[in-house]
Amino acid sequence: MFGLMQDWPLLCHRIIDHAATQHAGRQIISRSVEGPIHKTTYAELRARALRVSQRLDREGIRLGDRVATLAWNTWRHMECWYGILGIGAIYHTVNPRLFPDQIAWIVNDAQDRILLTDLTFVPLLESLAGKLPTIESYVVLTDAAHMPKTTLKNAVAYEDWIASVDGDFAFLDLDENTAAGMCYTSGTTGHPKGVVYSHRSNVLHSMMASTADAMGVSSRDVVMPVVPMFHANCWGMALTGPMNGATMVMPGPRMDGASIYELLNDYRVTCTAAVPTVWLMLLQHLESTGSTLPYLDRVVIGGSACPRAMTKKFQENYGVDVIHAWGMTEMSPLGSLCTLKPEYVDLDGEGRLDIQSKQGHPPFGVEMKITDDGGRNLPWDGKTFGRLKVRGPSVARAYFKDEGGSILDEEGFFDTGDVATIDRYGYMQITDRSKDVIKSGGEWISSIDLENLAVGHPKVAEAAVIGVRHPKWDERPLLVIVLKKGETAGKNELLAFMEGKIAKWWMPDDVVFVDEIPHTATGKIQKTALRDRFKDYVLPTAEAAE
Amino acid sequence: MFGLMQDWPLLCHRIIDHAATQHAGRQIISRSVEGPIHKTTYAELRARALRVSQRLDREGIRLGDRVATLAWNTWRHMECWYGILGIGAIYHTVNPRLFPDQIAWIVNDAQDRILLTDLTFVPLLESLAGKLPTIESYVVLTDAAHMPKTTLKNAVAYEDWIASVDGDFAFLDLDENTAAGMCYTSGTTGHPKGVVYSHRSNVLHSMMASTADAMGVSSRDVVMPVVPMFHANCWGMALTGPMNGATMVMPGPRMDGASIYELLNDYRVTCTAAVPTVWLMLLQHLESTGSTLPYLDRVVIGGSACPRAMTKKFQENYGVDVIHAWGMTEMSPLGSLCTLKPEYVDLDGEGRLDIQSKQGHPPFGVEMKITDDGGRNLPWDGKTFGRLKVRGPSVARAYFKDEGGSILDEEGFFDTGDVATIDRYGYMQITDRSKDVIKSGGEWISSIDLENLAVGHPKVAEAAVIGVRHPKWDERPLLVIVLKKGETAGKNELLAFMEGKIAKWWMPDDVVFVDEIPHTATGKIQKTALRDRFKDYVLPTAEAAE
Repeated sequence: MFGLMQDWPLLCHRIIDHAATQHAGRQIISRSVEGPIHKTTYAELRARALRVSQRLDREGIRLGDRVATLAWNTWRHMECWYGILGIGAIYHTVNPRLFPDQIAWIVNDAQDRILLTDLTFVPLLESLAGKLPTIESYVVLTDAAHMPKTTLKNAVAYEDWIASVDGDFAFLDLDENTAAGMCYTSGTTGHPKGVVYSHRSNVLHSMMASTADAMGVSSRDVVMPVVPMFHANCWGMALTGPMNGATMVMPGPRMDGASIYELLNDYRVTCTAAVPTVWLMLLQHLESTGSTLPYLDRVVIGGSACPRAMTKKFQENYGVDVIHAWGMTEMSPLGSLCTLKPEYVDLDGEGRLDIQSKQGHPPFGVEMKITDDGGRNLPWDGKTFGRLKVRGPSVARAYFKDEGGSILDEEGFFDTGDVATIDRYGYMQITDRSKDVIKSGGEWISSIDLENLAVGHPKVAEAAVIGVRHPKWDERPLLVIVLKKGETAGKNELLAFMEGKIAKWWMPDDVVFVDEIPHTATGKIQKTALRDRFKDYVLPTAEAAE
Repeated sequence: MFGLMQDWPLLCHRIIDHAATQHAGRQIISRSVEGPIHKTTYAELRARALRVSQRLDREGIRLGDRVATLAWNTWRHMECWYGILGIGAIYHTVNPRLFPDQIAWIVNDAQDRILLTDLTFVPLLESLAGKLPTIESYVVLTDAAHMPKTTLKNAVAYEDWIASVDGDFAFLDLDENTAAGMCYTSGTTGHPKGVVYSHRSNVLHSMMASTADAMGVSSRDVVMPVVPMFHANCWGMALTGPMNGATMVMPGPRMDGASIYELLNDYRVTCTAAVPTVWLMLLQHLESTGSTLPYLDRVVIGGSACPRAMTKKFQENYGVDVIHAWGMTEMSPLGSLCTLKPEYVDLDGEGRLDIQSKQGHPPFGVEMKITDDGGRNLPWDGKTFGRLKVRGPSVARAYFKDEGGSILDEEGFFDTGDVATIDRYGYMQITDRSKDVIKSGGEWISSIDLENLAVGHPKVAEAAVIGVRHPKWDERPLLVIVLKKGETAGKNELLAFMEGKIAKWWMPDDVVFVDEIPHTATGKIQKTALRDRFKDYVLPTAEAAE
């Protein structure tokens, strides 16, 4: 027997309908790519999104067609998302920070038909255009006055493009499982893989993100997503903001400390979100100028682990709560947020920071487990670490074109590729990537823990730890060190520094000194390259064992 | 093209799974029907709910079967809900405040197979049992020690009942549109009509209720639903609490001021909800004892309009925020909540109370419109009133057995039967019931506004206004007055009192004085009976017009 409630599909454009109806005059304040601050409202943004829908429809864009955006966070980019969503086409956010060849590969893989781009990226696209055969036209997100001369095919200024239709259009009613957005993961190996969000997954994700123990966004909040719309679905914020009628501040192309500070202060931002790098720049700016953050209430920090010192500074020096968060492109992307449950809420000082070093707990709608390699559940004791697996309505079940094949376990959980602990109150902490963890005699050693320890040595500039083949233990840790300029040190000095701070059997079997450690385009240590370089390395302990 | 996200149906029992996993030790504190305070946890509650599922399954209860509950808010009642939900059966909450014949009618209409009841209602059921042929067995929510001798068929004490199974059971995976719960509306005319919630509608409703501008429940909240689980789906709180890991306090059978105060104070309740009558009793208790409310943060008041003086007292005397709310059984039931958007947040004093007299604004997932009788949209100016219609995933599309036929308009909106204004910021205010509004020459007059004005006269105990046939204007208002004991007054005195406070054409055409105004079982003025009594009444103005 079925319930007798209304069939009301969860559609992303219903979010902007709600914002335009219930929060019509609330502002979206953007730093434009052209320079000046631009202000609009939800009512106006929806009206212009309807024009985007109408214009796309006129160009023959249909249900399931991909429309690429290569753009910063502005009101125009938001209009484009809702306009694309409103006719059942798919917004495909392309990350301009990828290598040009990767960009071309991704656009071709997605078979994008139209590409909407900011002025910033016109030169890049001109150099790539020959490699992008599926793109029928380029829309530059600017007005006629700022439109550059360009060789891009059928190039048109966005303001002219949407002025060519009258806006007398209605968003389509769709199946809620209709594809809504696409975002590629930048794998360290192989080609990038496309994640395909649905209207349903995006709406549910935003409802989850809205809850009090997640971001808790209200209409009284002023929300600034510094995390780009091209990065992991913008952590859902381009949907969560309007869903709750929050005022939005969009930073456009400038993410340096001074520019971010100006927006935080001038527009009284209460809630913002970005990766640690952005906040490092902001904190440096605050310290060098002696500025304060009187309006900011909370900052969500994710993308990579938030350093303890950063949390401490925000909270103790500036009175801003840090919400450490974790997620993945494959998770829409929020997986967990480190808000404080009653068991921890009364902690302060170092005890509070200990908990805030964890990546937090999942909202309703994200299930988590940690397992060993055999898929057996591991205990939630805050110590045992295992493969972190997740399940829920905003978690991927497959990649575009079935790239990578079946990605769920027999219980339907997605293996995140992370290794983590979970404590008795459900707080998860990332320990390592599963491909980087060192498997020594059936036990796991965290490469990240060893690296964090080694970089604490005053002579060390950078450290990496990889597993190297061992005849007795399968793998043992090798510590790879780049010394600070002008410093000298030996193996024993490094190991002595680590002694007593880790379990004895975690101690690296050897230390090698190198000039440079290889990095990926996004700045992470390229462990595959390191492992390749040291694949025949013979550990002194291996010689002894043989 | 469809998205590639996981198929994770929105099932109510996943809420208790989440609570038991992420908030395992959080407490549910109940005043038991037997008397003492009882404490349990989400982990324990879920384990016992599994036993309920297993036991129901053993008794042959299958997908879609109805299981009735006639019970107060306690941990056991919550266990029963989740146990029933977990096998795809339907919890049917029966309101013990209805007339016995209505209870029998409802149980028969729903064809309930098992009835779970509190000790309180055993005598009532014994007197009714002969009229309840579909009930195969009665489970009394108590233990063996408190189990009364009873003539009820196959009667068993709940604790024995669930002790007879081992709990080695799993909740079922179901289609999210599976019927979950049933609640009858107490219509003033005709038979009660069954509303059938689905798992999906209940889960989405709780997600909507969780947002910051609705109830904003967090794991740090201590939530007490005084509103009974048998009343309008408990305003969703039996689901919203565990969804967010809140501590819960369940008041059991005692809702007098002293009992409610004891729980609010002893267990540091931060958020509670009930109808105005309950809060009237609490405020009287506070005033007579000189008590304060140091822990309570907010109180949700709905079911009928919250008196302005009540809001004022809570806020000014006790520092507790009032959230005026509105909903219907047909809406799961929340429709709107009067939290303050930025446009109103800086108001204080009378200006703030003006806004808080409104029933508020809908969260994402509830669409509202006001229309005239022809279905044309009316302006949102805070003055024009029209039929209030709603649409959304937790709004009914039909009643059980299609009672009442088609209930949606051509755009899929449900007519609430209320008449309301909506202001430019989306705040809705109920003006009247549409069947009570007086239609005079094509214009509408609010009977409630006139009644509220008339009861302000110092000699008036109660007032009702109904529309009476008029040859020229179709209908004109007739004011029906019950004077306070020992008072005398005439028509002109009453009308003079109203003069200048309403539009001239709203002035009642006549006043009649009666000893008593008829009421429904739930204490509302029975206007149908009044209209029946005065159906041949000839207004003095009618005589003049003819």
